[in-house]
Amino acid sequence: MTGTKLKTAVLGATGYSGLELARLLRRHPRVEAPLLMRRGEAAAEVDPAYASDGHTPIMPFSWSRVEDHGTQLLFLATPHSISRSLVPEAMKRGLRVVDLSGAWRLKQQEHRVVYGFKDEDSTAAAHLDAQAVYGLPELHAKCIAPARLVANPGCYATSVILALAPLVSADLVDRERGIISDSKSGVSGAGKEPTARTHFVSVADNLSAYSVFGHRHMGEILEQLSLARNQLIFTPHLLPIPRGILSTIYVYLKKTSTSGEVESCFRESYRGKPWVRVYATPHLPQISGSLYTNYCDIGFSLADDGWRMVIVSCLDNLLKGAAGQAVQNMNLMYGWSEEEGLV
Amino acid sequence: MTGTKLKTAVLGATGYSGLELARLLRRHPRVEAPLLMRRGEAAAEVDPAYASDGHTPIMPFSWSRVEDHGTQLLFLATPHSISRSLVPEAMKRGLRVVDLSGAWRLKQQEHRVVYGFKDEDSTAAAHLDAQAVYGLPELHAKCIAPARLVANPGCYATSVILALAPLVSADLVDRERGIISDSKSGVSGAGKEPTARTHFVSVADNLSAYSVFGHRHMGEILEQLSLARNQLIFTPHLLPIPRGILSTIYVYLKKTSTSGEVESCFRESYRGKPWVRVYATPHLPQISGSLYTNYCDIGFSLADDGWRMVIVSCLDNLLKGAAGQAVQNMNLMYGWSEEEGLV
Amino acid sequence: MTGTKLKTAVLGATGYSGLELARLLRRHPRVEAPLLMRRGEAAAEVDPAYASDGHTPIMPFSWSRVEDHGTQLLFLATPHSISRSLVPEAMKRGLRVVDLSGAWRLKQQEHRVVYGFKDEDSTAAAHLDAQAVYGLPELHAKCIAPARLVANPGCYATSVILALAPLVSADLVDRERGIISDSKSGVSGAGKEPTARTHFVSVADNLSAYSVFGHRHMGEILEQLSLARNQLIFTPHLLPIPRGILSTIYVYLKKTSTSGEVESCFRESYRGKPWVRVYATPHLPQISGSLYTNYCDIGFSLADDGWRMVIVSCLDNLLKGAAGQAVQNMNLMYGWSEEEGLV
Amino acid sequence: MTGTKLKTAVLGATGYSGLELARLLRRHPRVEAPLLMRRGEAAAEVDPAYASDGHTPIMPFSWSRVEDHGTQLLFLATPHSISRSLVPEAMKRGLRVVDLSGAWRLKQQEHRVVYGFKDEDSTAAAHLDAQAVYGLPELHAKCIAPARLVANPGCYATSVILALAPLVSADLVDRERGIISDSKSGVSGAGKEPTARTHFVSVADNLSAYSVFGHRHMGEILEQLSLARNQLIFTPHLLPIPRGILSTIYVYLKKTSTSGEVESCFRESYRGKPWVRVYATPHLPQISGSLYTNYCDIGFSLADDGWRMVIVSCLDNLLKGAAGQAVQNMNLMYGWSEEEGLV
Repeated sequence: MTGTKLKTAVLGATGYSGLELARLLRRHPRVEAPLLMRRGEAAAEVDPAYASDGHTPIMPFSWSRVEDHGTQLLFLATPHSISRSLVPEAMKRGLRVVDLSGAWRLKQQEHRVVYGFKDEDSTAAAHLDAQAVYGLPELHAKCIAPARLVANPGCYATSVILALAPLVSADLVDRERGIISDSKSGVSGAGKEPTARTHFVSVADNLSAYSVFGHRHMGEILEQLSLARNQLIFTPHLLPIPRGILSTIYVYLKKTSTSGEVESCFRESYRGKPWVRVYATPHLPQISGSLYTNYCDIGFSLADDGWRMVIVSCLDNLLKGAAGQAVQNMNLMYGWSEEEGLV
Repeated sequence: MTGTKLKTAVLGATGYSGLELARLLRRHPRVEAPLLMRRGEAAAEVDPAYASDGHTPIMPFSWSRVEDHGTQLLFLATPHSISRSLVPEAMKRGLRVVDLSGAWRLKQQEHRVVYGFKDEDSTAAAHLDAQAVYGLPELHAKCIAPARLVANPGCYATSVILALAPLVSADLVDRERGIISDSKSGVSGAGKEPTARTHFVSVADNLSAYSVFGHRHMGEILEQLSLARNQLIFTPHLLPIPRGILSTIYVYLKKTSTSGEVESCFRESYRGKPWVRVYATPHLPQISGSLYTNYCDIGFSLADDGWRMVIVSCLDNLLKGAAGQAVQNMNLMYGWSEEEGLV
Repeated sequence: MTGTKLKTAVLGATGYSGLELARLLRRHPRVEAPLLMRRGEAAAEVDPAYASDGHTPIMPFSWSRVEDHGTQLLFLATPHSISRSLVPEAMKRGLRVVDLSGAWRLKQQEHRVVYGFKDEDSTAAAHLDAQAVYGLPELHAKCIAPARLVANPGCYATSVILALAPLVSADLVDRERGIISDSKSGVSGAGKEPTARTHFVSVADNLSAYSVFGHRHMGEILEQLSLARNQLIFTPHLLPIPRGILSTIYVYLKKTSTSGEVESCFRESYRGKPWVRVYATPHLPQISGSLYTNYCDIGFSLADDGWRMVIVSCLDNLLKGAAGQAVQNMNLMYGWSEEEGLV
Repeated sequence: MTGTKLKTAVLGATGYSGLELARLLRRHPRVEAPLLMRRGEAAAEVDPAYASDGHTPIMPFSWSRVEDHGTQLLFLATPHSISRSLVPEAMKRGLRVVDLSGAWRLKQQEHRVVYGFKDEDSTAAAHLDAQAVYGLPELHAKCIAPARLVANPGCYATSVILALAPLVSADLVDRERGIISDSKSGVSGAGKEPTARTHFVSVADNLSAYSVFGHRHMGEILEQLSLARNQLIFTPHLLPIPRGILSTIYVYLKKTSTSGEVESCFRESYRGKPWVRVYATPHLPQISGSLYTNYCDIGFSLADDGWRMVIVSCLDNLLKGAAGQAVQNMNLMYGWSEEEGLV
């Protein structure tokens, strides 16, 4: 643990992911106390719990503040349009960036349209689109290590891609038959803005489906798994819990298999990957097991016919689905153990 | 059930209390389908669940709409400042009014200041302040029956006053020693407006005290129980549940008593009152027992010394604490059974 | 409302469904105060909330008590093995029965095995198996009306069958392609027995799938929809809420259709059925809309390809999924309006 | 971090506190992977999430297993009667013990009776009663450091004692006037055993008071604060959350004071104590701020009269209220920083 520690900054440190990231960075053994910033003119009101802790307040964002801090790695926990406009400047200034929004995750224009990126930014950003690395460490560790711009994956997308990638890569899944992901998320995934939909009374004692056939994370899943649009149905639901995602995924195999074969496929894919836990059949993960950890937990059940299959994957949307994965990406980018600073 | 049914209107039918009131009135055997209104220019979006039910939509408010409906009784589920400005006109038009806000509950100016009523309305409203009846049926049934303007009590206030009134009336409580009400409410009591405080993530897995030494319902409790300000500490808390109130109330008795004596005092006070249930010692009510009912449930525990006492009272803040009590008041105003249309 | 009221009895009145049923029967305008019973030797401890209400206590079960009450209709909210042993005797005594367990729902032996009915009861019960009517009023009203033994459907099954029956009957669904129901239920569906699985700490802030490929309600769904076992995947999940079910159902249509055509199919099927609400596209029901009502709410979303389809159905598992549906069945059995005594 | 790591064992590692303790010890930089044990004959079923982690399973308890591990410090997360019987033997074997039950917290026999310690154990245990140190580090650090037997405080007691100790020590509180602690706890405080009371449906959407005038933690609070029994009313409530405690405490001051004076009293008492955070007036802590941390957060509000006062204290009952405090005690016992291994 000798040598200089990394200097990091977080923009958007008042949101749920940003707060979680700040918390992780403060405890990370290889990182200095991060510079915490927000957009807007005034410093954020300091949480009274921190007043006696001597924690740095959350400051208004400016490039000079970033420079003065000596920032080497900038985390953006900002809306995608903000990320889209800030990253080119950050690159110019020689910073490395981990962006937690959807701004740089997609290679294909057809998927990118859901974010409504404006035409006028396309010139400035086109080069970066090509250069950005999709920051799912279990799939792209080698590309993440040298990357200057890492697009941290969406929370839902992480839960679906990690559950499917081993089987899809091994060409075990009958894509023509259709893949269905019935996904459920806690409310922090919907962001901190108070709306009628996030009001406690709207969510408590309730469950609702939303964005059927049209959720933004579809594109990431399709691209990463090389699926055609009509080969996946993805249905998100809003759970009456603060955090956590469970995806129940339905696939048909190309040929009948045994549970042992499928479990082996998962285990081999994730051998040496510290943040994916493959459950032994017939156990299935639950949300509670992954909460407050950086794990993505995966289990499955194969029907007696050896053909129809249900996969269940769980993660904490603020950790493996956001801030934890961002730290995991940082660890790879600086050559540290993927486990550093995470639990 | 012969004869014409009562024509009612609800203004503010999009809020939690207003919605609950609309639901109760629709099922009330002596009331016609109510006119439902909201402030603002457009009709409210109809809940899709109602589309196939043929339910009346919620219409923009206007006096002509009230008149055209033949309204006899107007329920106001509006902010107190709106109630303050509308009631004088309603009176002129010969309507009877049950107002669910704090606009007309207080007789003493010192308590009223927390609502910030403007000076300019004082002339118009002064006569009405005197005329308004505090609509707590268990205490004021005789005044409510002929009233033209009934001020429906606050939800917290109902839970505290009903728990204390029998003992205070019988002069059993040592007021000098101080009364403490530690009250806890579900989130619907904070209203429907989305705020940082009512965001699901702020409330879930949490409990918080607020408005310590300064909650608006203090005035009602003091006036109804004839207490001096320094004889009561009232501390509200926000519970991670959608609805329900539990007040834990601490009193010292003037002289040592037995549980039997205290229970008798409660039972005699509420004999013939259908919406208060006195629990037999040592049983204490829980919030769940009163939810979705119009009951206020009351139980208590007396220390071995026969002197220190804990009272627990529970109710559903949207029913006995708001819409249910408003219907109970309507029942009294029209000479019907207090139980009519309520469960 | 002239004439004698119906005399009913509830066995199993201490469980969640039984309690809810007792509540409904007490308020039903055509039914006398029901006889409430439980198995076991002692009367159940009376809920202290009822002590001041003069409610009948829950008594130990005996046939003589049933007779003395003059019972005409017996509701069984008992485990299926108990129902299986009691119903033959009830039939002999000339009672009509609505049974809320799974004891009499299934016609095909292959589905019935999951309940482990013993061989020795087959002779006694075989005749009754044939005679029992599956009590889903929207599908079988004509058979329910004269029935002596009505098998009240399972809660999950009700949500799935009502969502699919119109499309399956119209032969719009491609069954060969497979139907998936990803269903989620509140905890009261798991019964009142305290277990590690129903402990608050196990359920709160959590979601879990269970009984994948092997839930008991599968058989009902297959029989009622005439599906082969491999044409349906049904995955139940345990939600951190006390009550309510939401089923997200995935089907492929035989030929491409429009939303209008599909909505018409639903509306025509449920015309005149008071307890199913079909949502207008693109609205989808949520659990909260059906809670504390007897409604099953159904909505759907059709992909742009007019072929892939997601149906969402919601209900309150203790009402439309149990006690409410039992009352609806009673209403049909005695020639009353299906809406009587329900909200 | 050089040198040998401490060898620890946890008995009762399947309960909530034991599990949390195991988690903390695994991550503690100065402690070896702990020996995890349970009473009973078989090893506990391994959580499937751990199967791929290579975590040690939870083994049946035996003294030889404790010896073979080379255990230096034994944590007991067992019922008090078990702790009572095991500790004398542990002492004989030269182990140091942190006991999380109520077995060794009380010096005065009158308080101890609520635990029903049997007469026959009094001889064996009397010497240990005198020797046991009440392990509240903020009050007794100097005695804890050399202690061989540390009695880890109760969760409620910690929240109440830390909130009151500074004012009581400074003789600011009018004890004659009576102190009231209205405390609310999440369900993990009630233990892992499934009961009717801990069933999800009993707790959700509910709040209930219990053990009024008779909770076991009373004795600890009275002893630590040198209060007479009739000077304190302590009312626990069961909150619909998995973990967390909030105590709302009412005191009258001996003489009128300012908020500044009171805040100074708190700040001076907890200067240099890393695990108590004093909130600046008028801020009050909420449960959520202390969850998943070892902090006890304290804030207060003083009435305008400078005499009546409300104190709010919050903590995580499984951390500062149990396992975290046990680690804090271990840190003191071995001369490490109190912060080591805690967040």
